[in-house]
Amino acid sequence: MAQLQRIAIALDQLQQNQIWLTAQQQHYLSRVLRLQKGDRFIAMDGIGKWWLAQLEGKEAQILETLTVETELPISITLMVALPKNGFDEVVRCCTELGVACIAPVMSDRTLLNPSPQKLERWQRIASEAAEQSERSFVPTILEPVSFEAGLSSFATNHKYICEGRGNYPHLKKCLQQTGQTTILIATGPEGGWTEKEIDNAIQAGFQPVSLGRRILRAVTAPIVALSLISACEV
Amino acid sequence: MAQLQRIAIALDQLQQNQIWLTAQQQHYLSRVLRLQKGDRFIAMDGIGKWWLAQLEGKEAQILETLTVETELPISITLMVALPKNGFDEVVRCCTELGVACIAPVMSDRTLLNPSPQKLERWQRIASEAAEQSERSFVPTILEPVSFEAGLSSFATNHKYICEGRGNYPHLKKCLQQTGQTTILIATGPEGGWTEKEIDNAIQAGFQPVSLGRRILRAVTAPIVALSLISACEV
Repeated sequence: MAQLQRIAIALDQLQQNQIWLTAQQQHYLSRVLRLQKGDRFIAMDGIGKWWLAQLEGKEAQILETLTVETELPISITLMVALPKNGFDEVVRCCTELGVACIAPVMSDRTLLNPSPQKLERWQRIASEAAEQSERSFVPTILEPVSFEAGLSSFATNHKYICEGRGNYPHLKKCLQQTGQTTILIATGPEGGWTEKEIDNAIQAGFQPVSLGRRILRAVTAPIVALSLISACEV
Repeated sequence: MAQLQRIAIALDQLQQNQIWLTAQQQHYLSRVLRLQKGDRFIAMDGIGKWWLAQLEGKEAQILETLTVETELPISITLMVALPKNGFDEVVRCCTELGVACIAPVMSDRTLLNPSPQKLERWQRIASEAAEQSERSFVPTILEPVSFEAGLSSFATNHKYICEGRGNYPHLKKCLQQTGQTTILIATGPEGGWTEKEIDNAIQAGFQPVSLGRRILRAVTAPIVALSLISACEV
């Protein structure tokens, strides 16, 4: 089972066995995911096709077509404010539910300052959970960064931030718009996001969404969000 | 916050301030939930109206109309094969997600034989989680019974059993049929249901359903199922 990064591409980026990467994708692959020239990743068209690709700078070389049966057709990145407890369970459940990448962030109300050993631990949990749930690929767990850095790290037009209070549309409604091949979903810490964080997220192109009328814990919200998004494959 | 049992009624059961109970409802209230004459419960019409009612035998007296804002319009009973570990978390998350009743069952592959103290513990967790999530009502946790006994205990036409293997329709698809005011959903133990259990469930009117193409753990499946059902309120 491979631990490879995944990006969604548009079909017109594909020419023969080359993928022409957008500036955003180049930034994401080399700056956020820290891939080097020659490193491999997965390119997906969002409607079921996956390719093993090799980074060559502004383009990528397709090495082979992959057969996947247990992976989602969409690439989901979960940006999650580190909760005080229970993050192991978030990693485990969201891996089972098909997440592609987990990006822990430190928000204003985050209490935890994780040690570097934590990242290794989370990666091990993700790897075990991917195996147990019979996935073809292991999700990527990124190093924790500040919420502000997280806001500008990801290249997708479909960015949602979950907020328990306020009169926002339900995530399920927002998922009904078609053509979402990559989704970034952010969930908050105990006590929720600050008003300023929500404002900054909106500025960065995020749509605030609700997960229902009850207040969910910081560790429940990501699992609920992932359940709803992964059911989009149906 | 009240810890009252809930049943869904059809509007034609209502006459002035009386509810005429069906034989199934009488059985459920007095045999399964063990309510006595004079005990109170909640009657709901499944489209947002709730009444406080008092059991009088074959009928019930309406005492008052209730205002609810954080409760689901549907009454969900989760029938869950007791997992070896993590049941506390199932109770907590499913309470946050709006479950009305949790019915733990002992299946062929259930390893745990819970002590009577466990039930009190689960009820305390449900009560705390209902408060934290700002629900109006605390879910009922029933005493564990055998899977066979569980199969015949509940009065609803919408009964689903989740199964990780096999080519069953996705729960999300089944939820698209309208008019579901009460839902019974069953999730299995580590290792899944036995073939015989699935057959017996089908005989008892259950529809086997899938929760997606990945294999979920026994503690993840109920949370995913509840996430999908509770999103029906949207």
